[in-house]
Amino acid sequence: MNHPAPFARRMSRVTASAIMELLKKTAQGEYISFASGLPDPSLFPAEKITLITQEILANDSRAALQYGAADGYAPLKAWVAERLRQRGLTDATPEHILITHGSQQALDLTARLFLDEGSPVLIESPSYLAAIQTFDSYEATYLPVPVDSEGMCVEEAISAIKRTTPRLAFTLPNFQNPSGVTQSLERRQKLAEALAEKQIPLLEDDAYHDLRHSGQSLPPVTSLARNPYAVYTGTFSKIVAPGLRVGYLYAQPELVNRLTQLKQITDLHSNSLSQRIVYQFCERGWLDPQIEMQNRVYSSRRKALLAALAENLTGVAKWTEPEGGMFVLLSLPDSFNTKNLLVKAMERGVVYVPAESFYPNGGGESALRLNFVSATEEAIQRGIAVLTEVIHG
Amino acid sequence: MNHPAPFARRMSRVTASAIMELLKKTAQGEYISFASGLPDPSLFPAEKITLITQEILANDSRAALQYGAADGYAPLKAWVAERLRQRGLTDATPEHILITHGSQQALDLTARLFLDEGSPVLIESPSYLAAIQTFDSYEATYLPVPVDSEGMCVEEAISAIKRTTPRLAFTLPNFQNPSGVTQSLERRQKLAEALAEKQIPLLEDDAYHDLRHSGQSLPPVTSLARNPYAVYTGTFSKIVAPGLRVGYLYAQPELVNRLTQLKQITDLHSNSLSQRIVYQFCERGWLDPQIEMQNRVYSSRRKALLAALAENLTGVAKWTEPEGGMFVLLSLPDSFNTKNLLVKAMERGVVYVPAESFYPNGGGESALRLNFVSATEEAIQRGIAVLTEVIHG
Repeated sequence: MNHPAPFARRMSRVTASAIMELLKKTAQGEYISFASGLPDPSLFPAEKITLITQEILANDSRAALQYGAADGYAPLKAWVAERLRQRGLTDATPEHILITHGSQQALDLTARLFLDEGSPVLIESPSYLAAIQTFDSYEATYLPVPVDSEGMCVEEAISAIKRTTPRLAFTLPNFQNPSGVTQSLERRQKLAEALAEKQIPLLEDDAYHDLRHSGQSLPPVTSLARNPYAVYTGTFSKIVAPGLRVGYLYAQPELVNRLTQLKQITDLHSNSLSQRIVYQFCERGWLDPQIEMQNRVYSSRRKALLAALAENLTGVAKWTEPEGGMFVLLSLPDSFNTKNLLVKAMERGVVYVPAESFYPNGGGESALRLNFVSATEEAIQRGIAVLTEVIHG
Repeated sequence: MNHPAPFARRMSRVTASAIMELLKKTAQGEYISFASGLPDPSLFPAEKITLITQEILANDSRAALQYGAADGYAPLKAWVAERLRQRGLTDATPEHILITHGSQQALDLTARLFLDEGSPVLIESPSYLAAIQTFDSYEATYLPVPVDSEGMCVEEAISAIKRTTPRLAFTLPNFQNPSGVTQSLERRQKLAEALAEKQIPLLEDDAYHDLRHSGQSLPPVTSLARNPYAVYTGTFSKIVAPGLRVGYLYAQPELVNRLTQLKQITDLHSNSLSQRIVYQFCERGWLDPQIEMQNRVYSSRRKALLAALAENLTGVAKWTEPEGGMFVLLSLPDSFNTKNLLVKAMERGVVYVPAESFYPNGGGESALRLNFVSATEEAIQRGIAVLTEVIHG
């Protein structure tokens, strides 16, 4: 290509991450991976999905293989609405729900609804990488708010809002990616009210909601104040199977209509067969037992990781202690650079994600993210022992 | 909502079509539908898909239910590349292919890659409605080019390009939606060369390629000149099953990389199970027999529609005579308004799509689109008889 590429201006903000490309190459190798966000595929309910799929294709193949409604399969919308009513979104009806290809699509559609070039986004720092990349693609600017053990530091968020009115506020209240921390009820309430007062659009990514191992479930930020521009997103990727690409969003019906228009021009509608598989799985009462089984396994792995960190790195590093989810954030002394350290860890067969790319306006050079759902307890112990040796140089 | 809605500027161009909303309501009723683009679900290869799906879930469930690569399932990419080599895209390798959630997503990603607000798009008038809606959402402007029995009028396109350099040229060369016409080889060659000379990005939507009932298959515009910014899109929706949402695009690898970055932030990757179902269906040699069976049925229906039009409306209306695809465009005298006429047709149990919304800069008020794939031959004959009565008032 000799001429300058005739791409849209937004493409200057859409770039490959060298680190993520590097990590992609490790997917096939014999590594102990603390890097990915992949659930353990041995826990997928494959037999139940096989049974359901046979029945759907035997009884309902014409609809399951045909084009469908842009807003989703009506029975699944109704099931999700009922689930969200139990979760504290007490007004949820099917008209409040849009089914999406994973919650990533819900994030992208919401950003597309609200963001112009230069729009300020209030965001936790660190935050979910693929959300940052999506906001980048809409040429957002950032109002980063630090995260501590109770989640987004809401007093700082409220100060930021007073200086600059954001066009969107993005939060992951439960077992945040990448830190693993959960926002306290008091902070949720304050954040919800501050946003509702100014009618600032809220995007609440609750992908990890059901992955709680201990402590009390807390109500969604979206449920704690009346905000006509709040969008709450969830997914079946972490609790049924990610390959089916079924997620959803909740918002007021007027907003759902606008988001459905965007869904339609994006990919017409969500997969007809996958929506039916997920619906049948849920309708038969198989979801909660699946979640419980999975949480028992992941809770043991989380404890194994926290125990290995305490045994090996007490006094050397600090780390978060999540009540569920998939991730722990490990912070080394400022003199460390976790991107450089990764090269050495990879030579020893261990991979993680350097935290730098999770900080929308920079930072996190000496932190790294560890997932505890991909590796067995034994592998976790070995991996942390190796990582400790690498840290000690 | 008391305040003005805090939506992105683009949302002023994303609106519901009153006509499409009206037609949506007819989907459940007892209408003879010339309106939708729905394939006949009785022709779906449901038994074969059931068999394949059982085998995939028995042998490969962990991968079929897990997250997958953003660019798609490698064996399917390789199969598509081989298919496109046979179709005239002789350099196609897996690196030239991105798997998408239907070809609609391929159109949306390509628009996202190339279009800024105000970017001029060279486009057939009429053209595919959901593509126009996508371009609208990127705040495009239009350089409309008329369509005649040989497709896009390329001399007019070349004149338009001389006046204003488009940021994207969009064409549907085969059995164009909504007109049904096919672009001649001579025009394809001229268009390809004119775009390549100025390195103007080309988006070639070939969703209907395999739906040819008569005449010779023609090479893609993309194959006729070396243009680093050409994107060619196709889909399995019209030849396997739309509910599986599997489409693809072909472009030079450097461009595929950029489009894959957009795919990833949009919905991470395409459905893992659906991609395997489509791949197995194709790999077992079942695609071409399925296409042949389907084309026999649709060809009979096309002939029934053309015969009914000739019998009832000769001297009253004009219509296109497609060699395949799904649609015929019917033009009434200028005094007719097909939106008003639709109300009367619906009272008599017949629905079609008024053509007005297919014209990006207006026009088409006295034209309408008829599909010939949803209704049986007998229903087509009855429907056209009713429509004729409505036209005669």
